[in-house]
Amino acid sequence: MAENAPQDWLERFLVGDRRALARIITRVENRTFDVPLLMQQIWSRVGRARVIGVTGPPGAGKSTLVDRLLEHLRARGQRVGVVAVDPSSPFSGGAILGDRVRMQKHFLDEGVFIRSLSTRGRHGGLARATRDVIHLLDAFGFDVIIIETVGVGQTELDVMKVAQSTIVVLVPEAGDTIQVMKAGLLEIADLFVVNKADREGARRLGNELQAMLHMRASADWEVPVLLTEAAAGKGTAELLERIDAHGALASSHDEPSARESEWRDILRDELSARLERIVGDGHLEGIARRVRIGEIDPYGAALESLADADLLAHLVAAGRGR
Amino acid sequence: MAENAPQDWLERFLVGDRRALARIITRVENRTFDVPLLMQQIWSRVGRARVIGVTGPPGAGKSTLVDRLLEHLRARGQRVGVVAVDPSSPFSGGAILGDRVRMQKHFLDEGVFIRSLSTRGRHGGLARATRDVIHLLDAFGFDVIIIETVGVGQTELDVMKVAQSTIVVLVPEAGDTIQVMKAGLLEIADLFVVNKADREGARRLGNELQAMLHMRASADWEVPVLLTEAAAGKGTAELLERIDAHGALASSHDEPSARESEWRDILRDELSARLERIVGDGHLEGIARRVRIGEIDPYGAALESLADADLLAHLVAAGRGR
Repeated sequence: MAENAPQDWLERFLVGDRRALARIITRVENRTFDVPLLMQQIWSRVGRARVIGVTGPPGAGKSTLVDRLLEHLRARGQRVGVVAVDPSSPFSGGAILGDRVRMQKHFLDEGVFIRSLSTRGRHGGLARATRDVIHLLDAFGFDVIIIETVGVGQTELDVMKVAQSTIVVLVPEAGDTIQVMKAGLLEIADLFVVNKADREGARRLGNELQAMLHMRASADWEVPVLLTEAAAGKGTAELLERIDAHGALASSHDEPSARESEWRDILRDELSARLERIVGDGHLEGIARRVRIGEIDPYGAALESLADADLLAHLVAAGRGR
Repeated sequence: MAENAPQDWLERFLVGDRRALARIITRVENRTFDVPLLMQQIWSRVGRARVIGVTGPPGAGKSTLVDRLLEHLRARGQRVGVVAVDPSSPFSGGAILGDRVRMQKHFLDEGVFIRSLSTRGRHGGLARATRDVIHLLDAFGFDVIIIETVGVGQTELDVMKVAQSTIVVLVPEAGDTIQVMKAGLLEIADLFVVNKADREGARRLGNELQAMLHMRASADWEVPVLLTEAAAGKGTAELLERIDAHGALASSHDEPSARESEWRDILRDELSARLERIVGDGHLEGIARRVRIGEIDPYGAALESLADADLLAHLVAAGRGR
């Protein structure tokens, strides 16, 4: 039997087929040429889900915390999608061991969908793919979508922009609070969590964070600092209450400025994806060769390529299938 | 007196004027239209510097370690440029307090140049700007260039690709070693440093790292794990010896494949920069308005923009000054 066409998967997606959802996510991950078209067709269903971000340095216990939130949300009957954003690792194969364990745990629960996303070496593609997947889960009908990141770098901060409420998870050992400022976490946090709060220094870190937060001009939301022990289930129910409270204030990602900014992002990412396809198809092999043998420098070659009408024609053509 | 033209600064750069270097770096940070042209003109001088990367989670003591390396390198008469790559922070203003302290310390030393780079909200621009600045410092005549990152996210990993030798700095409290794998640090490390080695668990972390490294197929370089106490100056001289040893094996960034990959990166980044300029100039305001009022969805609008001959003409024109 022939492989189903993307349009067939889309139809199945629209009637709630989880396999179709998984298939379309794979297309998003691979940045195939038809992704913007697929996304366009599900757009009218987007905008109902509550999107929560969980970030923080490696080792802060984010996965465990997300697991607890998942349990609380399921207990009150909400359908939950989890997207774990993971910088690709050729050594570990990209898949996170813990995610597999989690996925097995929820395997029979139709109300839960967990997916890891990794970069596969594409520049800037991870933030784009994450947004697309969140829109897909939203359109599919999940009530709550949790994005969890592995690190705290710029990509992770970019990814967090899509969340309506962002939780920054720290542990007492995470270093002094000046590091929190350095990593840009103070600006993106709607809620701070000091996890593994049974460890030494938890209360002190909490107080330092409070002090730093007081230096900021307070808006309509005062960023709380909560102590949790996610592994023991302590403090996570209160955390969810606070997330709910913030949600009442959080803006939708379907506001005019959010839509415009998303369009600009898609435009840029789609240009990059098409360029990658053009190079991959060997359309620029002539100049690539001249760069390799040192006949032209990389900057001069880029300027020459961009002044070439052929490249621009290819950029249009690369939006179609081959 | 009129502002000097970029071409004047370039001439001054070529005769060793540090103010000209600083000015051109600012143009690189702002991604002005003439950057590829400027870079093209200094390219013939690029390729002599030794490029060392230092990365690791916040709080690992990277800045202190870099300071020690700087002192050792200066003691043997080498000229050193330091680029501190910092995700932008609107709250802290982007500049790192520690960097200012460092800069003051070396203010009178012509053999040292320290510069922080932050994103200023440009997507993917930070990795590009970092590469450009490294080429500039290289062309300017610095013998060694150290890139130091603040976090350990995807951008930071991208940035590290330009380094010939990458040092990953951890501290005993950084969490168990599985986190190192998760964050993709194992793949990029040429040398591991366990800093603050006087703390509990340092030796255990060192042993765990060793064990993980043994699982990898050993190439011509065995990744060492060194214990340091950078604040007390312990172990840093030995670290530099090991860095030198790795340098003897490290490949130049002027190899055919490196040149080709740089050309592709420049091409992509230049396309993004031009797109940003086009939008900033209001050339796409018509469709932007339709997106804002919800007349068209963001994906459909991006596809429509990319099918528009005007946009492509603007992409060419945006490579020239206004």
